[in-house]
Amino acid sequence: MEDKKTDIWDSFSGFLEKENAIRTALTLFDWDNETLAPEAASEKTAKAYGALSAVYQELLTGEKAGELLENVKTEKSLSQRKQALVTKVEKERKKLLSVSEEEYRRFSELTAMSVRTWSRAKKQNDFSAFIPVLEKIVEMRKNFACRRAKDGQRPYDVLLSDYEEDFTIEKLDQFFGELKAGILPLVKERTRKNKVCPIACDFLFQNFDVEKQRHFNKWLAAYLGFQFSRGVLSESEHPFTTSFHKDDVRITTHYYKNNLESAVFSTIHEAGHGIFEQGNEDWITQTLLAGGTCGVHESQSRFYENMIGRNRAFWEPIYGKLQKNFPEQLEDISLDVFIRAINRSEPGLIRTEADELTYCLHIIIRYELEKRLISGEVAVSELEEEWKSLYGEYLGVVPKTAGEGVLQDIHWALGEFGYFPSYALGNAMAAQIYHQMNQQMDVEELLRKGDIDQITGYLREKIHRFGASKGVEEILLEMTGEKLNPKYYVEYLKEKYGE
Amino acid sequence: MEDKKTDIWDSFSGFLEKENAIRTALTLFDWDNETLAPEAASEKTAKAYGALSAVYQELLTGEKAGELLENVKTEKSLSQRKQALVTKVEKERKKLLSVSEEEYRRFSELTAMSVRTWSRAKKQNDFSAFIPVLEKIVEMRKNFACRRAKDGQRPYDVLLSDYEEDFTIEKLDQFFGELKAGILPLVKERTRKNKVCPIACDFLFQNFDVEKQRHFNKWLAAYLGFQFSRGVLSESEHPFTTSFHKDDVRITTHYYKNNLESAVFSTIHEAGHGIFEQGNEDWITQTLLAGGTCGVHESQSRFYENMIGRNRAFWEPIYGKLQKNFPEQLEDISLDVFIRAINRSEPGLIRTEADELTYCLHIIIRYELEKRLISGEVAVSELEEEWKSLYGEYLGVVPKTAGEGVLQDIHWALGEFGYFPSYALGNAMAAQIYHQMNQQMDVEELLRKGDIDQITGYLREKIHRFGASKGVEEILLEMTGEKLNPKYYVEYLKEKYGE
Repeated sequence: MEDKKTDIWDSFSGFLEKENAIRTALTLFDWDNETLAPEAASEKTAKAYGALSAVYQELLTGEKAGELLENVKTEKSLSQRKQALVTKVEKERKKLLSVSEEEYRRFSELTAMSVRTWSRAKKQNDFSAFIPVLEKIVEMRKNFACRRAKDGQRPYDVLLSDYEEDFTIEKLDQFFGELKAGILPLVKERTRKNKVCPIACDFLFQNFDVEKQRHFNKWLAAYLGFQFSRGVLSESEHPFTTSFHKDDVRITTHYYKNNLESAVFSTIHEAGHGIFEQGNEDWITQTLLAGGTCGVHESQSRFYENMIGRNRAFWEPIYGKLQKNFPEQLEDISLDVFIRAINRSEPGLIRTEADELTYCLHIIIRYELEKRLISGEVAVSELEEEWKSLYGEYLGVVPKTAGEGVLQDIHWALGEFGYFPSYALGNAMAAQIYHQMNQQMDVEELLRKGDIDQITGYLREKIHRFGASKGVEEILLEMTGEKLNPKYYVEYLKEKYGE
Repeated sequence: MEDKKTDIWDSFSGFLEKENAIRTALTLFDWDNETLAPEAASEKTAKAYGALSAVYQELLTGEKAGELLENVKTEKSLSQRKQALVTKVEKERKKLLSVSEEEYRRFSELTAMSVRTWSRAKKQNDFSAFIPVLEKIVEMRKNFACRRAKDGQRPYDVLLSDYEEDFTIEKLDQFFGELKAGILPLVKERTRKNKVCPIACDFLFQNFDVEKQRHFNKWLAAYLGFQFSRGVLSESEHPFTTSFHKDDVRITTHYYKNNLESAVFSTIHEAGHGIFEQGNEDWITQTLLAGGTCGVHESQSRFYENMIGRNRAFWEPIYGKLQKNFPEQLEDISLDVFIRAINRSEPGLIRTEADELTYCLHIIIRYELEKRLISGEVAVSELEEEWKSLYGEYLGVVPKTAGEGVLQDIHWALGEFGYFPSYALGNAMAAQIYHQMNQQMDVEELLRKGDIDQITGYLREKIHRFGASKGVEEILLEMTGEKLNPKYYVEYLKEKYGE
């Protein structure tokens, strides 16, 4: 019996190794494409990438994979870890099986075309040019979701569960309702105060030598605890994090000559993602459970970016170093003035440039729109007007063009509906973690001493090592004794931005 | 009938796309590993790489591939191009099939271990520590080769044909015999002259700012015609060229603070390889016929490095630019002094540092040794002494340590027997091409005008576009009216280094 069991797991293991190998190769293509590949490479590389995706699809949906899964599921005494892996692989297989090879190819072609159309429409501020293709994308996505819907699930619920399993429309409606109620008055109040007494931040937008920025940001990532012996910091148009396994985690940032703030907070944000991945346990890395769920991942990047990176205590020991790097620009700027500037808040039109206070409102608008888009309550052709109206209502600003409005994000062009809420979940989770952590240790005192290791050690123990094997709710319940509760985030924001 | 034919080719084509996708992914892993991957990544990445290699092996040796090949071979009216592809795929399949999965795994493990043992033994100058593992490698390689031997082929013939199909022991014995007879007296004479009147080259080994070297080398690669819109220049420990397809060709160089010459000639050499790959025709790229055969490839890198890169006419228009980059070091160095320095020749111990005149002698020594190693005339345990004796005989220098002697190259540790001769074939081919080209155009005048495009255009037309679909002999026969003839190389060297 023992032998048979070992054989079954070994066969499944061999399959997992191939699954990992092809997926890792696809990840490497993505990384290379964003950071290094020459301009003209894309067409031919896309051909290889497409063929490799097909090989992946075949491997996961093949009869052989089905047999291996059936066999391994008959094992009664699999460890919890092995079971978690089996469940994850089965879920991925079901998802891929719900779409035929032909449909998959059509959808891939559609999104490839859609991204080009979106990019052109955005440049030309012409939403109408994007409408027909977006309609097709919504239709296909909705169809695929319907097939996977279990009893009672609405299609948007299915899409949401792809990114963060525990969250449904019902739960998110309540979550975002509480957030909105807490944040809207704060934004209003802050907008009023800004008029009376604007916060100085011009000094962040002088000329900052890019080579010197590179030097400082690399040092900063290491200071935060990102390990360069097991990681890489490169550059790309849009900063991101990816990883091949825990010993090869890649983060990027983007340097602007006239903006010191942008690269610094991109680096801290991505280092947060990166430190999470470097903290995965061995059994998890190189499997589909590596990394973390979207919400948990974002909680870590936001935690490092905001709770740590915008904290006065964090900058106390290192602001002098930043000044030394840029004496001409920062010599006369006190730490207090610097801290106030990097914590300013002002409603704007662009999500990726939003501050901590207003960020979730950008997400709420997208959530409300995509929910109604998938349910059919809003038509694609009505999106632009709805967008404007919600921005006016929540943020008090109305986009003049589609490029700074409904066309600003790439997500919908890629067919990614249900992804946006993870950003808000991450923000709220970060605040709840921060609250809990402050009960256990004097976080600011640690920051003042430059002892970030102890903070990261705590996060590794409670979060990082589990990768994607635990979601937002499970982690928070184990860590704080309660599931996600937006009140911590609202309280955090009130304390920071309130009276 | 037409339809069936289309179907058969389409199915084969689909298979080729997958073959290309996985092979390209493996190439990308290699590139990333040499240029960017962090230190600690190797163990886990090797696991993914190994699994992906197994997927490749399975695809090519599977029943499905066999059927597709059989079907496509029944087609009578395939174009020559398609036939060339089919032949190449079949050859690759046969090669992989000759080794069982279990043997392949054992050989991979053996070479992985062998490289580590070799690296340690090289550092410790202890050849005896490498003997047992090298014996195993020779044994396995020989066995595999025997299985593939057609009538009359000796095992070393089989190995040679993996790199350059047209060349057998018989042909190479004659080729190297003529080279040796031509080169040995020149080396002797040059050594004598060096004693009387040594050539000044100290100025090449001053302190050269690496950032400035980077700048100049990037410019130089572009000046030579390497297209950065379809290529990348990075850095690695040992310079190399790789490509994913003709629109994404990657070359590397290596900068030394105290050596200007090293990076410059590595860049020119690799740019030669790179320009070749960028010149492949569309039908060839993304197939097993992409790139070029080893000998043809080396002929191009050597042509750019030596016939162009060490040519006075090449430097005439651009030496001033080099001086401007390094005024402190080169201001007082005239073009003539510079040209003499970069064309100096002196027998040495290390192949990769050898000059144009002595390079082939390093290859001849390796050829003679590996030929006798595979035939059993020389035992692994005798290699070190044989090596010393041949170096003494041909080059007049004897290595004191194994590191600068028999352990200097990685090739044998990888099981690559039969590869070395390609380097010499490339050198000789480059000279024959150069001779032919000079009948067609005034090469030096073109160089003086900085019109390298015209030279590259000629090479593209006659060589680059064919990729690996034509070998050394076919290309030379079509281009010059005769097969490879070492006399051109000997004449070239005589003119350059003789009286």
